[in-house]
Amino acid sequence: MLTGKHILLIGGDARHLEIIRKLSTLDAKISLAGFDQLDDGFIGASKYTMDEIDWKTLDAIILPVSGMSADGWIDTVFSNESLTLTINQLKSTPQHCTIYTGISNAFLDQLQTQANRPLVKLMERDDVAIYNSIPTAEGALMMAIQHTDFTIHHANVAILGLGRIGMTLGRSFAALGANVKVGARETANLARISEMGLKPFHTKHIQQELKDIDICINTIPARMITARVLAEMPLHAFIIDLASKPGGTDFRYAEKRGMKAMLVPGMPGIVAPKTAGQILANILADLLKSEEEEDDQDDA
Amino acid sequence: MLTGKHILLIGGDARHLEIIRKLSTLDAKISLAGFDQLDDGFIGASKYTMDEIDWKTLDAIILPVSGMSADGWIDTVFSNESLTLTINQLKSTPQHCTIYTGISNAFLDQLQTQANRPLVKLMERDDVAIYNSIPTAEGALMMAIQHTDFTIHHANVAILGLGRIGMTLGRSFAALGANVKVGARETANLARISEMGLKPFHTKHIQQELKDIDICINTIPARMITARVLAEMPLHAFIIDLASKPGGTDFRYAEKRGMKAMLVPGMPGIVAPKTAGQILANILADLLKSEEEEDDQDDA
Repeated sequence: MLTGKHILLIGGDARHLEIIRKLSTLDAKISLAGFDQLDDGFIGASKYTMDEIDWKTLDAIILPVSGMSADGWIDTVFSNESLTLTINQLKSTPQHCTIYTGISNAFLDQLQTQANRPLVKLMERDDVAIYNSIPTAEGALMMAIQHTDFTIHHANVAILGLGRIGMTLGRSFAALGANVKVGARETANLARISEMGLKPFHTKHIQQELKDIDICINTIPARMITARVLAEMPLHAFIIDLASKPGGTDFRYAEKRGMKAMLVPGMPGIVAPKTAGQILANILADLLKSEEEEDDQDDA
Repeated sequence: MLTGKHILLIGGDARHLEIIRKLSTLDAKISLAGFDQLDDGFIGASKYTMDEIDWKTLDAIILPVSGMSADGWIDTVFSNESLTLTINQLKSTPQHCTIYTGISNAFLDQLQTQANRPLVKLMERDDVAIYNSIPTAEGALMMAIQHTDFTIHHANVAILGLGRIGMTLGRSFAALGANVKVGARETANLARISEMGLKPFHTKHIQQELKDIDICINTIPARMITARVLAEMPLHAFIIDLASKPGGTDFRYAEKRGMKAMLVPGMPGIVAPKTAGQILANILADLLKSEEEEDDQDDA
């Protein structure tokens, strides 16, 4: 339980409703800023303006998944207000008050350093990335079904990378009857691909290996699918690029050759906002509870 | 091979392009009616008007999947012309000339009886239905991912019926990590559901069994999901009804209660026209080849 903890949520989207629900169930005291258009059905959560917040009693501040913009603005979906967090506000919190964000940037990093408060970047955690790989893989399945005129079943599918997302993709596409090959470089990954019953290949042979592919999904944040690779791929091949911007595909050349290639941003919040919110809520609850345990141990 | 066979296609859609490709590869002589807007890239297939057809040499006539309309019109996607097949045309074919259609109706049945030519209804064949269950299940997955805010993974999914489609659905949803239960009546089906590692239930307990469901997919062509059943289901439950019209759901009541329920027509031609065409092309090729073998045996 989180009885006695005071947690402030500033801005956020549908995912944050799941966080509010979870923390409320655990009996935390929840203050909300940037939620003025939200229904009042959330028991145990009170809406405030940034001026009304009782900063002195805060144990944690939860920011949106995107954290802050380059000039310090905080995204709000449930408000028309634009919010920002000042160094003075942050400094008036207790020393242990932890800031939770999805990702960070130079602005937020600097704010945190100046205020000297702990900062947790949830999206950088392995567990969050692995749980998020589930809605990401389902989103890739949805796109593959929607944007091709053939079935995934018996299609030749190549996945580039056996990271946290690549492993889930390999399992999901194979489970639906696709012929899946996975490209990687490390020998341990090539062994794991083989153990999973999939066909491993070294990414240095990518040009040869993609020649007979119907669907290619990239997860590697490097220029993998170059013009040379694209030139040898079947024209009907569909490319889903899940690597962070700018992706690993030569999109200009793909378009020139008339091939369908899509760079897809954060799928979890799009295809399954409720599940994506529950993933964050569960991890946050665990983190907040373990902080409390540490406090208890410190006291003992 | 189908060397020497003369096959006429009248109308049809993208699926029929796969049929033309396949039969052409097998060296059949192919005549096309209702394809005047089709590219001329199809080697071995010649376009004719209905008047130009050499009816006396035909071994087979392939109609669209829909067969004919109630008043005898044949659907053409690659032509603006409206086509029809007369009793005199049909009677001028050789006695063995077989008509292949997806489904039939009173008009076509009568025409066939009058002309006394064999009629094969492809969509009534078990093999076609089983192959088609693959794109159907992928279409259901696509809809489930698209129309819910949670993942299929760990969702509570109920499938009604363990027929040709139900079995594929059960396997596909379970493969993606859903908690799948399947409702059936026959003890052999309940045993098979259990063998597949899924949870069987008798459809007489449907009201109780759907109480905690996130996604329900009906394949039974009978009123299964009644107002009484719907009233006990969670409001967020998403219903996909794959049974033929009018489906097995009380859609009026579902809408009244604010629940999302969709009656989905023939998925294969929508989500995977190329695969759906290949399914028909492969079965047609086998049927035409086995006819030839029978002829050879008769000759011997």
